[in-house]
Amino acid sequence: MIKAGIIGATGYAGAELVRILARHKEVSIAWLGSRSYIDKKYASVYQNMFQLVEGSCLDDQLDQLVDEVDVVFTATPQGYLASVMKEEYLEKARFIDLSADYRFQDVDVYEAWYKIEHKSPQLMEEAVYGLCELNREQVKKARLVANPGCYTTCSILTAYPLVKEGLIDPDTLIVDAKSGASGAGRGAKVNNLFCEVNENIKAYGIATHRHTPEIEEQLSYAAGRQVTINFTPHLVPMNRGILATEYASLVKNPDGSLPDEKQIRGAYEKYFAQEKFIRLLEAGVFPETKWTEGSNYVDIGFQVDMRTGRIIMIGALDNLVKGAAGQAVQNMNLMFGFAEAEGLDLVPLFP
Amino acid sequence: MIKAGIIGATGYAGAELVRILARHKEVSIAWLGSRSYIDKKYASVYQNMFQLVEGSCLDDQLDQLVDEVDVVFTATPQGYLASVMKEEYLEKARFIDLSADYRFQDVDVYEAWYKIEHKSPQLMEEAVYGLCELNREQVKKARLVANPGCYTTCSILTAYPLVKEGLIDPDTLIVDAKSGASGAGRGAKVNNLFCEVNENIKAYGIATHRHTPEIEEQLSYAAGRQVTINFTPHLVPMNRGILATEYASLVKNPDGSLPDEKQIRGAYEKYFAQEKFIRLLEAGVFPETKWTEGSNYVDIGFQVDMRTGRIIMIGALDNLVKGAAGQAVQNMNLMFGFAEAEGLDLVPLFP
Amino acid sequence: MIKAGIIGATGYAGAELVRILARHKEVSIAWLGSRSYIDKKYASVYQNMFQLVEGSCLDDQLDQLVDEVDVVFTATPQGYLASVMKEEYLEKARFIDLSADYRFQDVDVYEAWYKIEHKSPQLMEEAVYGLCELNREQVKKARLVANPGCYTTCSILTAYPLVKEGLIDPDTLIVDAKSGASGAGRGAKVNNLFCEVNENIKAYGIATHRHTPEIEEQLSYAAGRQVTINFTPHLVPMNRGILATEYASLVKNPDGSLPDEKQIRGAYEKYFAQEKFIRLLEAGVFPETKWTEGSNYVDIGFQVDMRTGRIIMIGALDNLVKGAAGQAVQNMNLMFGFAEAEGLDLVPLFP
Amino acid sequence: MIKAGIIGATGYAGAELVRILARHKEVSIAWLGSRSYIDKKYASVYQNMFQLVEGSCLDDQLDQLVDEVDVVFTATPQGYLASVMKEEYLEKARFIDLSADYRFQDVDVYEAWYKIEHKSPQLMEEAVYGLCELNREQVKKARLVANPGCYTTCSILTAYPLVKEGLIDPDTLIVDAKSGASGAGRGAKVNNLFCEVNENIKAYGIATHRHTPEIEEQLSYAAGRQVTINFTPHLVPMNRGILATEYASLVKNPDGSLPDEKQIRGAYEKYFAQEKFIRLLEAGVFPETKWTEGSNYVDIGFQVDMRTGRIIMIGALDNLVKGAAGQAVQNMNLMFGFAEAEGLDLVPLFP
Repeated sequence: MIKAGIIGATGYAGAELVRILARHKEVSIAWLGSRSYIDKKYASVYQNMFQLVEGSCLDDQLDQLVDEVDVVFTATPQGYLASVMKEEYLEKARFIDLSADYRFQDVDVYEAWYKIEHKSPQLMEEAVYGLCELNREQVKKARLVANPGCYTTCSILTAYPLVKEGLIDPDTLIVDAKSGASGAGRGAKVNNLFCEVNENIKAYGIATHRHTPEIEEQLSYAAGRQVTINFTPHLVPMNRGILATEYASLVKNPDGSLPDEKQIRGAYEKYFAQEKFIRLLEAGVFPETKWTEGSNYVDIGFQVDMRTGRIIMIGALDNLVKGAAGQAVQNMNLMFGFAEAEGLDLVPLFP
Repeated sequence: MIKAGIIGATGYAGAELVRILARHKEVSIAWLGSRSYIDKKYASVYQNMFQLVEGSCLDDQLDQLVDEVDVVFTATPQGYLASVMKEEYLEKARFIDLSADYRFQDVDVYEAWYKIEHKSPQLMEEAVYGLCELNREQVKKARLVANPGCYTTCSILTAYPLVKEGLIDPDTLIVDAKSGASGAGRGAKVNNLFCEVNENIKAYGIATHRHTPEIEEQLSYAAGRQVTINFTPHLVPMNRGILATEYASLVKNPDGSLPDEKQIRGAYEKYFAQEKFIRLLEAGVFPETKWTEGSNYVDIGFQVDMRTGRIIMIGALDNLVKGAAGQAVQNMNLMFGFAEAEGLDLVPLFP
Repeated sequence: MIKAGIIGATGYAGAELVRILARHKEVSIAWLGSRSYIDKKYASVYQNMFQLVEGSCLDDQLDQLVDEVDVVFTATPQGYLASVMKEEYLEKARFIDLSADYRFQDVDVYEAWYKIEHKSPQLMEEAVYGLCELNREQVKKARLVANPGCYTTCSILTAYPLVKEGLIDPDTLIVDAKSGASGAGRGAKVNNLFCEVNENIKAYGIATHRHTPEIEEQLSYAAGRQVTINFTPHLVPMNRGILATEYASLVKNPDGSLPDEKQIRGAYEKYFAQEKFIRLLEAGVFPETKWTEGSNYVDIGFQVDMRTGRIIMIGALDNLVKGAAGQAVQNMNLMFGFAEAEGLDLVPLFP
Repeated sequence: MIKAGIIGATGYAGAELVRILARHKEVSIAWLGSRSYIDKKYASVYQNMFQLVEGSCLDDQLDQLVDEVDVVFTATPQGYLASVMKEEYLEKARFIDLSADYRFQDVDVYEAWYKIEHKSPQLMEEAVYGLCELNREQVKKARLVANPGCYTTCSILTAYPLVKEGLIDPDTLIVDAKSGASGAGRGAKVNNLFCEVNENIKAYGIATHRHTPEIEEQLSYAAGRQVTINFTPHLVPMNRGILATEYASLVKNPDGSLPDEKQIRGAYEKYFAQEKFIRLLEAGVFPETKWTEGSNYVDIGFQVDMRTGRIIMIGALDNLVKGAAGQAVQNMNLMFGFAEAEGLDLVPLFP
């Protein structure tokens, strides 16, 4: 049994880590970090955890924390971990960072999109991008894992096999994504009030959202060249869930025909058939976010449109589980040699 | 055409005043007060009003405002108007206060429940409680109207005829009320975030909510003696609407029988048959908040329960219209001799 | 490992049974009964179960079913099980009925409120009312368990200790309950459409709802005499959850004082302190349905109101879990000697 | 004052016609057609109209109806009007059809996408496509107006000026649209139940939705050549509102540069600056459906993305108003020479 510390335990992603780890057989939570609620009982902040979690919230004392735990999860604002991280910490504990600080190889990309100076760029190369299905072996050996973003997990996995196999032209890729409100976090902002979100849908971060370069970087590895895409997120009046609707032009086969349903399905199966947490839906069935709620699944479906020569790919997941805390636990399981699905045996809740 | 000033124009009740007054034939809005958004275009705060309202937000300058307008609406926090009000202001403009500052005759009740020192108690007696259907004649002559609370408007009107006619025992009255989230205002608080309100229902202010004494005072006038009740509000995941479910023991007729449906209906009709904004529903039909959305209606239904000797009375309204801005405009119409329904010809939106 | 059959597996309660049993260590699902979807793959009806449940839906063949399974769950319309049940079935398998058919001791009460002729009244006495916390020992020995209603589980447990201890006058009890839409089932009715339920709250079944006599019967056992109450359910725009707000007059102590917070808490603790699935909240904390979502918990809080001499008791649960499928599994665990919480180790989902 | 008849008055679009016409100064409703509710009081089906609409529902007797009214609105299933329409009817009354029956010039396109045989193709050429802002003059003279679809109104208007001016390549156009649930109508289907729609988002009709050819036909007129696009609708858990997010590649200027923000804005202004019901938002402001709720506005915003050479255009409207009933009334106003905005002076409701 290892010990885990969470910094940012009272945000929604942090709370989901607590929910999942509370039932994990190999881990106990030893540190519930939350600067906003120091000394307050955790279960009084998240009353759903009453009688399930006994501890109180602690300040962020990384110096002390790394001596007491085996793994540190940081569910913190962008820039936090980069600004405090030291080599010494990594020698004492493994880190899984749910922020964007170590998701890029190129510090310039990070600084351009996040408008933050990166304080520990020397660690960016070592950090492993923790998309388990793509980087499983590297994750196993990692000291520092950059847990992918919620939109990006969904967007990348949905397109990856087709980009990798050259079945679509990645430069025609358009990702139109929709997210529930928990993706915006638990900060007290007018924009996130019930009455502002409810009965409403809007796009935001149009042509500027910071998950764009993250998708581009990973798909560029798949394509073997630099890829530029459009990514537009939308806010949907629901608590959880991300749906990514992705459009791309199909690349013709050598004989001039367009790839058909069977070819496309074959590509998905090549990469994902053995993946427990990726469910490739049957022909004619398309993902709905509710089918993944509370679970670590990514559901993927697609439709070839012969009229336009495009494919529509659709992916869905729970942004707090596979899009954040669940994937972080999956990464931890890999890093510590536990069964990859331990603690993630979560059945989607419907309705 | 008169001129109106609104202080607190960017809260939800203030914004609803703007929505209603924008179509009022006898009034133009001359002052959009909002300390939080000074100099910002109003339509950039409430983008629904784009091309409908041209002005920008102004600071709260009552000294200046009373010289420029005929009527001032204050949609402000409790205690604000009481702390700045002067006799001089009332000589220059009429005031309709959407806060609780002048809703009570007894300053001790106000201070006990609101935990605020009242700075102008000398005006409490002059102020008219602006429940138009009950106090129409006094409102017409008033300089200062205390616009009733949202829960209280619904709770009082639903029980009033039966209390007045002695058909129910007011001390057995229990009001279990449910409200949409706009009643909590537009303040940026964690409790009001989408993810905290959505998919959830809770009671709050149990045995302590400040609308309790307001209901008690008005029903005491109806009963001719001091009345004490239970009032419990609940937060419902919807934007607008209040439903009040009220329980009371029926008072037996002289012959020992319980009042029947006809007697009860007769009492409601005696007081409300001529009221345009009160709709007494047919037997077996009970109010739903959605049927009043966006309108100034109060819908009322009831059910006699011979098994228990109680009556269940149910009222519904839109908390921002009849529960706030609509009633304020109705009061203004009475005060200035306009048609009482001017600007309030609003058809409920369904769905 | 025992085998379970579910009749009515594609309703919401049936689907929740599937969700819970899918992770239960002592049970496998051997029969997914659904007349509406015969031969259709279960996971194509509930796509959230894709790759988790492999079987297809079967017709309702009780004759065959009782030979193949150890326990039968019936999540069926009122009257179904009563009309087909035979002594022979009970000799072959245990039954847990989620309908109301065996919840009453008195067939007249059933027929009066349900307007259905009961076809097997001879079994009503044998059937055990499966409110585990109250009837644990009888459930262990039962062949036929009547699983309580959703509203009733919440309403009874919230008031039980105070009725039993004589701290409240049960004839003053008023239960104002609020439920999410899954309580109305999965039938295709206009009233249950999204646009009819969303942004709306209404009462229904006023003074006539069929859970009334069920609450009365159980509280009558607690009171030691016949109890008559008011029960009013409301439909709330959310998927899951029931909140019961209950009002009753406190019974004075022999010294003329009203019971205080400590006495009340003592009564709750006397009955529930050892109950894993009942969480008595701390003073000043009141239940919210979201804190129980997806779990088998009932959360209970209360407030003494010295002004009116009443107590306000509030209970919350997930209507599909503790209010239906979870409680059914808890009953099964008791009947078969499994750990009572097996399969019910469910952490509430927030947000 | 003219008389209007509505066939299909109890569907959501029909009910919205009733809501709008109830306040229209030039029209009275003389016929509330609804086969499902014959002889039932209209206000008992839509209780929001209690005391506002007095009539009862009538059967569909077109023979009689055309003698009694000046204008007939048909808010009926696809194929209905085409199957009953006669020249004689058009000589007696004007028709505004909210179905798709007369939206196409080419009967083959209709039959291919709708899988219905068209019974009166001879009228397809005469019928005017009632997108008022594009076809105002033809609408004024029309006997038969095909009221556009909800998605199509939003999708076409959002892209029209840029297609017309050749600023975008129409064959690269991708329309990713999101709609509230009222667009699915009031039919009692499991898919439209609250619990199925709430807390969920999904795409549907992928590459096959019947609004696709309607968008293509109108944009082909603008482009001066045949246009083929991708259109994907999504169901969002809200009552009203459509948001269309549209992507297209910009066409380079003769000097090789991409069109900039000013050029794009100029194109929109050229066509829409004088349009009362189209609000072109300021730079950096993007539509939200809530800002249009209950009103006849279409809000449009856009963002040029120099990185990808694409433009993202976003349009929003209320699907029941500008997307159905409001536009139908706007068409009627044009046809009868009323002020175009009569009855449509509707202020968006927020929140």
